[in-house]
Amino acid sequence: MFETAELGQSVDKKAFAKQETKLRARLLELQYRALNLERFPVLIDFAGVDGAGKGTTVNMLNMWMDPRWMYTVGYRAPTEEESAHPRFWRYWRDLPPKGQTGLYLSGRYSRALVKRVYGELDATAFDERLAQIIRFENALVDDGALILKFWMHLSQQHQKARLEALAADPALSYRVKESDWRNHDNYEDFIDAGQKIISRTSRGRSPWHIIEGVDANFRHLEVGEIIADELARHLDDHERAIGAAKSTSAPESGSVATKTRSRTVLDKLDLSLHVTKREYRRKLEEYQARLGELGRAAAKEGLSSVLVFEGSDAAGKGGAIRRTVWSLDARWYRIFQFAAPTDVERAHHYLWRFWKKLPRAGHTCIFDRSWYGRVLVERNEGFATEDEWRRAYAEINDFEQQIVDRGTVLLKFWLQISKEEQLARFEARANSEYKHWKLTDEDWRNRERWDEYQAAAHDMVQYTNTREAPWVLVEADDKRYARLKVLNTIIEHLETQLEASSG
Amino acid sequence: MFETAELGQSVDKKAFAKQETKLRARLLELQYRALNLERFPVLIDFAGVDGAGKGTTVNMLNMWMDPRWMYTVGYRAPTEEESAHPRFWRYWRDLPPKGQTGLYLSGRYSRALVKRVYGELDATAFDERLAQIIRFENALVDDGALILKFWMHLSQQHQKARLEALAADPALSYRVKESDWRNHDNYEDFIDAGQKIISRTSRGRSPWHIIEGVDANFRHLEVGEIIADELARHLDDHERAIGAAKSTSAPESGSVATKTRSRTVLDKLDLSLHVTKREYRRKLEEYQARLGELGRAAAKEGLSSVLVFEGSDAAGKGGAIRRTVWSLDARWYRIFQFAAPTDVERAHHYLWRFWKKLPRAGHTCIFDRSWYGRVLVERNEGFATEDEWRRAYAEINDFEQQIVDRGTVLLKFWLQISKEEQLARFEARANSEYKHWKLTDEDWRNRERWDEYQAAAHDMVQYTNTREAPWVLVEADDKRYARLKVLNTIIEHLETQLEASSG
Repeated sequence: MFETAELGQSVDKKAFAKQETKLRARLLELQYRALNLERFPVLIDFAGVDGAGKGTTVNMLNMWMDPRWMYTVGYRAPTEEESAHPRFWRYWRDLPPKGQTGLYLSGRYSRALVKRVYGELDATAFDERLAQIIRFENALVDDGALILKFWMHLSQQHQKARLEALAADPALSYRVKESDWRNHDNYEDFIDAGQKIISRTSRGRSPWHIIEGVDANFRHLEVGEIIADELARHLDDHERAIGAAKSTSAPESGSVATKTRSRTVLDKLDLSLHVTKREYRRKLEEYQARLGELGRAAAKEGLSSVLVFEGSDAAGKGGAIRRTVWSLDARWYRIFQFAAPTDVERAHHYLWRFWKKLPRAGHTCIFDRSWYGRVLVERNEGFATEDEWRRAYAEINDFEQQIVDRGTVLLKFWLQISKEEQLARFEARANSEYKHWKLTDEDWRNRERWDEYQAAAHDMVQYTNTREAPWVLVEADDKRYARLKVLNTIIEHLETQLEASSG
Repeated sequence: MFETAELGQSVDKKAFAKQETKLRARLLELQYRALNLERFPVLIDFAGVDGAGKGTTVNMLNMWMDPRWMYTVGYRAPTEEESAHPRFWRYWRDLPPKGQTGLYLSGRYSRALVKRVYGELDATAFDERLAQIIRFENALVDDGALILKFWMHLSQQHQKARLEALAADPALSYRVKESDWRNHDNYEDFIDAGQKIISRTSRGRSPWHIIEGVDANFRHLEVGEIIADELARHLDDHERAIGAAKSTSAPESGSVATKTRSRTVLDKLDLSLHVTKREYRRKLEEYQARLGELGRAAAKEGLSSVLVFEGSDAAGKGGAIRRTVWSLDARWYRIFQFAAPTDVERAHHYLWRFWKKLPRAGHTCIFDRSWYGRVLVERNEGFATEDEWRRAYAEINDFEQQIVDRGTVLLKFWLQISKEEQLARFEARANSEYKHWKLTDEDWRNRERWDEYQAAAHDMVQYTNTREAPWVLVEADDKRYARLKVLNTIIEHLETQLEASSG
């Protein structure tokens, strides 16, 4: 696989100077075009053999292009903050906004590579890691991102020569670490694992480019030319798509293919379920005491929870959330409300704002509405295209899988009320002195489209009700019944999880 | 001072239930009013004697009010991430947006208190810490924030009884830590330091409220009533101010008191300074090599730098920044461009967005435009009131003092060009194929008001040129001269700082 990168290609100083001038002007122009278009982020990943010059090429790119819109990250072992979150949290955190470029060293691939070589990952775990990376890249590419991956290669002889030359130069010897020599001794294993990475993750929309690393001039130009070519192509594609969208009349948004179903999974719920006031009081007190204990145990064990609340307007999400947190210590939970994204959030992938809010170890995060907005309101109001919300089911499943993999308890509550009950609650709000602010024109508009929203919720449950991250459908016409069911569900899951971790 | 909090005040269960219902409705209504007004954040701080029930009262407030717009933070010893930033970084990070409430436990006061009692801070350092806290609070209060501070008191006997009762209860004994007993033995020292805190930091606009902590019912109600009263008063004040602003005709914005000076500090610069192309090449190479070395040494030593670039449009900030970073490793620096604030940023104090970007230890942050926008563009375009930009000088000096206190190198470059040179550069941009995007209508508009901007820059240098964070005025009609001066200045400061830390 790497034979094509052992050809001894090089570029002399004069030829380099000439080509560099042209390439730089081209790169700058393309960078500004991307910046003005503001349609997609560019991610450039560098991996490969130690000493193959990844760092110097990255610095050269920062010199050639305008560094004010570039963001270079070199990953090290996860910090305390990073370890307290799911594995990909830091990669999501470091994504560039649309129009800008991120350069990544020792990133998602390099860490998997080193762990595989030194046996921290067996073949199966390594495969799983690569599959995770592919899903991460697909989610971004589907959203329009340009991903470029460079594998810098050196033969074992050249690697040895490079390390020896660096070590001999007093000004550069600091660059050679003991681990470099250890890696050199394991050269063959690195090559094997590298081949596996490239063959498994070189896919149509984010292929690997293998670069001969020996000669710096050749390497810089090669990488620069590929970036320029791919960026130009990507820009052309996007500009063409915008042009096409403008010339054909846009399909009516909102009306996209939302078949309303005659019967949804939600219709099967028995909304007459209720509890008496007396029983409610007794059980509420009991559940809250128990939840308080479990909350303290979870904080102590470092067990995190993510609790998602969805449901139609006036379904009682706020009330259920408040009863849930009553017995928890306010220092250990945080409630996030999600409405329309802010301007910065809109400049990123839609999952970005949720990734940033995931809890640290031991903490509980409650999402009052969530990433499911993508397949509910964004679907029904036409804010997401059909292609976007359809692929969101898989993206969400993957996102949740990673939360669960971190050992986090993830529960998703859908609070279901009848159309009649909603009307009654709207009217009560309109007449209440300090609840009327809760009722907006938009609520009435959404109510008009009740059936579409029920259909979207049905699909959502159908596609995202996984064993690891189940939906809990809550019969909520009786607020008391709903609150107790929510509390009891949380208690049961925390108990199971705490027993599993202590047992 | 604390005698008024040893009166044995209590509230029985029945009276509590009655008052609680009324208080809760009032608090909720006020909370929603503040949320709708969206004009100021509320910060509530809890400090005082161990075991006086701070935590339970905070949880009660979260129960009474709507926790979705409240944010409770309990500080512990700084994390790795927090230690790598200036001391107040985490307090700035955790500020609530306008309309919402933050509740703070073991915050800025409690940490200073414990350190004073155990001798980590001597009397002078403790005073300095309190003065820092006052400046922090003033910056927020000046911006409209409501700050409430509660000191929870217990007599030594009551503290002992409380700790013993907790320790005896199997369900609650986890709350009593060894450090609580140690603190109990040092009760007198705590009281002394507490008195000092209260007398020094109880100021007109953010006074301390001393609360008798023995009886939970009394304590909850007392705190709740004070919050309700103060919040109501603050809301009334704000609503009145808005009404008043609407009824009187607004003063012409932009024209506020900007006397244009006949001669500014910038006029004294010799803009004919220049270097030949040959000398430039030679020195640039030399400086960049040196800066590369120093950059690596700084990363190794954990020395951070903050480099601020300001200047009129087309003064050459971008070019100087690019030459600065050329020889630095892209993993260790980050360039931030600042234009108009985003919607989330606008919902916070204007310094908030800059606090969040301060570098970790060992990193370099370059600010392409900065917090000085407050006293330049915001002043001249009327985005800040005269009161706001005038007090900004002191706020900025304090902000920078804290950056410098962390051991960070802070340099501020003002790139000065003549009005004629600006015109020449504008015209060159308009005619250049890939630079014309850089020139906007706004640039031409700002040019119309050249004298006002020069006057604002003069005032800025006058008020914020401190010994710790000096302004470097750069003669920039000759780009080459300007770039060398910038590089050389950075080199000199890094050398001094690195010598000081190693010596």
